[in-house]
Amino acid sequence: MNAASNEPLMSGLLVVFGITGDLAHRYLLPALYQLERQKLLPDEFEIIGATRRSAEVPLLLDGIEAELKASGQTADPATLASLGRRLRIVTMDPTKAADYANLKATLDELENERGVCLNRLFYLAIPPQIYGPVVDLLGSSGLNSGCQHGAADSRLMVEKPFGYDLTSATELVERLHHSFSERQIFRIDHYLAKETAQNILVFRFANPIFQAVWNRQHVTSLTITAAETIGIEGRVAFYENVGALRDFVQNHLLQLLAITTMAEPAVLDSSHTHAEKLKLLKAITPIQPNEVTQRAVRGQYRGYREEVGNPDSTTETFARLKLDISNNTWRGVPVTLQTGKRLNERSTTITLTFGASGSSAPANTLTFRIQPNEGIAVELLAKEPGLDQHTKPVEMAFSYAESFGPAPQPNAYERVLMDGIRGDQTLFTTSDEVLTSWRIVDSVVKEWAKSSDGLIIYEPGTPAANI
Amino acid sequence: MNAASNEPLMSGLLVVFGITGDLAHRYLLPALYQLERQKLLPDEFEIIGATRRSAEVPLLLDGIEAELKASGQTADPATLASLGRRLRIVTMDPTKAADYANLKATLDELENERGVCLNRLFYLAIPPQIYGPVVDLLGSSGLNSGCQHGAADSRLMVEKPFGYDLTSATELVERLHHSFSERQIFRIDHYLAKETAQNILVFRFANPIFQAVWNRQHVTSLTITAAETIGIEGRVAFYENVGALRDFVQNHLLQLLAITTMAEPAVLDSSHTHAEKLKLLKAITPIQPNEVTQRAVRGQYRGYREEVGNPDSTTETFARLKLDISNNTWRGVPVTLQTGKRLNERSTTITLTFGASGSSAPANTLTFRIQPNEGIAVELLAKEPGLDQHTKPVEMAFSYAESFGPAPQPNAYERVLMDGIRGDQTLFTTSDEVLTSWRIVDSVVKEWAKSSDGLIIYEPGTPAANI
Repeated sequence: MNAASNEPLMSGLLVVFGITGDLAHRYLLPALYQLERQKLLPDEFEIIGATRRSAEVPLLLDGIEAELKASGQTADPATLASLGRRLRIVTMDPTKAADYANLKATLDELENERGVCLNRLFYLAIPPQIYGPVVDLLGSSGLNSGCQHGAADSRLMVEKPFGYDLTSATELVERLHHSFSERQIFRIDHYLAKETAQNILVFRFANPIFQAVWNRQHVTSLTITAAETIGIEGRVAFYENVGALRDFVQNHLLQLLAITTMAEPAVLDSSHTHAEKLKLLKAITPIQPNEVTQRAVRGQYRGYREEVGNPDSTTETFARLKLDISNNTWRGVPVTLQTGKRLNERSTTITLTFGASGSSAPANTLTFRIQPNEGIAVELLAKEPGLDQHTKPVEMAFSYAESFGPAPQPNAYERVLMDGIRGDQTLFTTSDEVLTSWRIVDSVVKEWAKSSDGLIIYEPGTPAANI
Repeated sequence: MNAASNEPLMSGLLVVFGITGDLAHRYLLPALYQLERQKLLPDEFEIIGATRRSAEVPLLLDGIEAELKASGQTADPATLASLGRRLRIVTMDPTKAADYANLKATLDELENERGVCLNRLFYLAIPPQIYGPVVDLLGSSGLNSGCQHGAADSRLMVEKPFGYDLTSATELVERLHHSFSERQIFRIDHYLAKETAQNILVFRFANPIFQAVWNRQHVTSLTITAAETIGIEGRVAFYENVGALRDFVQNHLLQLLAITTMAEPAVLDSSHTHAEKLKLLKAITPIQPNEVTQRAVRGQYRGYREEVGNPDSTTETFARLKLDISNNTWRGVPVTLQTGKRLNERSTTITLTFGASGSSAPANTLTFRIQPNEGIAVELLAKEPGLDQHTKPVEMAFSYAESFGPAPQPNAYERVLMDGIRGDQTLFTTSDEVLTSWRIVDSVVKEWAKSSDGLIIYEPGTPAANI
């Protein structure tokens, strides 16, 4: 998916804001360890941990070791050592303008030592409330561009949430654009960064057998479900402000819908892929205020209010939207996006139902199982062996683990970091996509904020289909 | 697939000509045992073994026991005993007119004892050379119809070969029609009577997901291969006169092609199914004499001539035909039928290759595996796990054994007998189908008889694709 006409510059300086935080500890540092172990990091690659707390490289490495151990792996001492040699700490308050001089000096010095320009990657592993100020300060301190002659790049890597509604998202997009151009901003969507998204794209565009049926003439419905069995796992303040619609539907599920239904890009590179994805998102009719009752369902698991200590909470832990894609390929196909916590199973799936128009034959389904056990399954009717003519649904399935062995797939953070290092934006979200997605759900956000009307209290363990 | 509007008469008298022969011993009697064991035989059902040799019921039952033992099964004494009670022997020379009076008396008596009319099924487990005389005598002795009021039926069950070329097949069809109408004749094709044929029909017509691509717009080629590792297994006289084209292509492979490509019958009953199958066979352009060299390939395994003791034998043990189906659905799709003995594997498959027209994307294949391990497999391209964009062919598969358990499927003879008993002709071959199939290959038969030009001598163990 790389347009690798001439080899891009990969050498770089990765600045992680929040190196002592939970995200860095649990995901970023272990992902860097895995990349180092597989010798995927460029030779010239330094990691600068920025933090206002005290930190030491050996303690960070101990943290990686502990994290690996928790997932049943043993840390390789040589890998830890070589990763340690790339790591250094810059103590700073990322909201304080004065502290950026020191950071800049560190980066300049690292380049001067080598006598080259290096790409600069700023990873914001910090609370979204301070994205704005930090990005402003990166801009005003001149860290928003690489060193002279444009030989190197400056890139910003940010995690969701990208705003809380259409208005705040628009503001955030504009604020970031003051300091960084769209080309420099890597908005992370972990569902896209999993193998999944690419598996779907390869499946769709490399296999002509299914292309003929990928349209309203053959698809009778499309449902994307992200079901979790866990609750909010103690993230009270975060979840009370977010809810299922913002946490999953506006971003992950709409992105999955887009890659499942967008037209084939003329070239499978970042710009063509994003153009098709945006075209698809724009073809989804935004839900109108007067449609919210019939197009959106919300639920909250029993016990949630006690858990968050707010007896009046109307935050939804389950959300379902019914959407229409009003283009020639999909018009009229009912699209359902749904997600929830404390449901009966952990399962993320994209299911297309196929029926022959005008035929009474039962429908077939094609399911992308995203987790667990990623794979693709087609449910078919087959004849039961025997002298009678009974049919039974059977599964024709392909499992990545079965076909490619139990080798761990690169996790989303390894992918995100590597794509940031090589500057491939294909699996990131553009500002247009973010805003178009918010536009689709904005009325629902607003209507749900007004009252608790229609909020369904469901028992933990309920199947999504029953809510 | 039964048009079961009113319950058909199943009670009957099965007359097996050749009860002491190899076919009866190895297949028919064990199949009757299995039907008895599963309590599928009608209450009123007698089996009359006709033979010119001496025979005794206990010896036939011993034969069943031995046959079961050879396939690792233990005979159930109660089943053997109840089957034995249905069995009786009529000693007769089936080519002698005078002997039919006794046979008729036996059948009449069995009906008189019960005071009912029973269906009469005549199974010709005898050499094809005497099909003609036996059928003539069944007709002239009045055994070609059931007893009065048309309440019962008389049916003729015959094995291949149905003629040796178009001329002899036409003669045989006409001769049989002197005594039996088409409705009464059950021409057995074991490939249709396996579960396979019905599995293909169910797969095709019960699953809309594949119907959209089942045509020339999406299928780029269609190949049916019946590969065997065994040689002619001592059947010297038989095989020298037949060869691979007559033994497999004219019947089994053309039948498989027909059910794979025919249009969906308006009703899945015998008459609609046969009408669509015949329409398809008629759409196949018969090979012209001047096309034989380019459309037909023949081979003979090294060692065959020694095996049959004929140093000049030109009998083919491998045959391949390239055919065109000249209708709107399939025109231009290259169709290959091929079969051979002493090849590198035992495998019968129907493979469709799919490509997007005008796309450079690699092709997909969909394969019906008929044996071994019957099932359906789609070869897809999937992304190899990892940070790069490599794809690899993987299989999405469905196996009958895996889905339905290792329970033995009814074998072809159980099916054939049950369908004969209930009068369902769906899985048998009509005279029109037989003659149309001969018409397709007749030029090849004739050209190959003229000389040994183009006969390829192949080493045992060669893959079909290399011949």
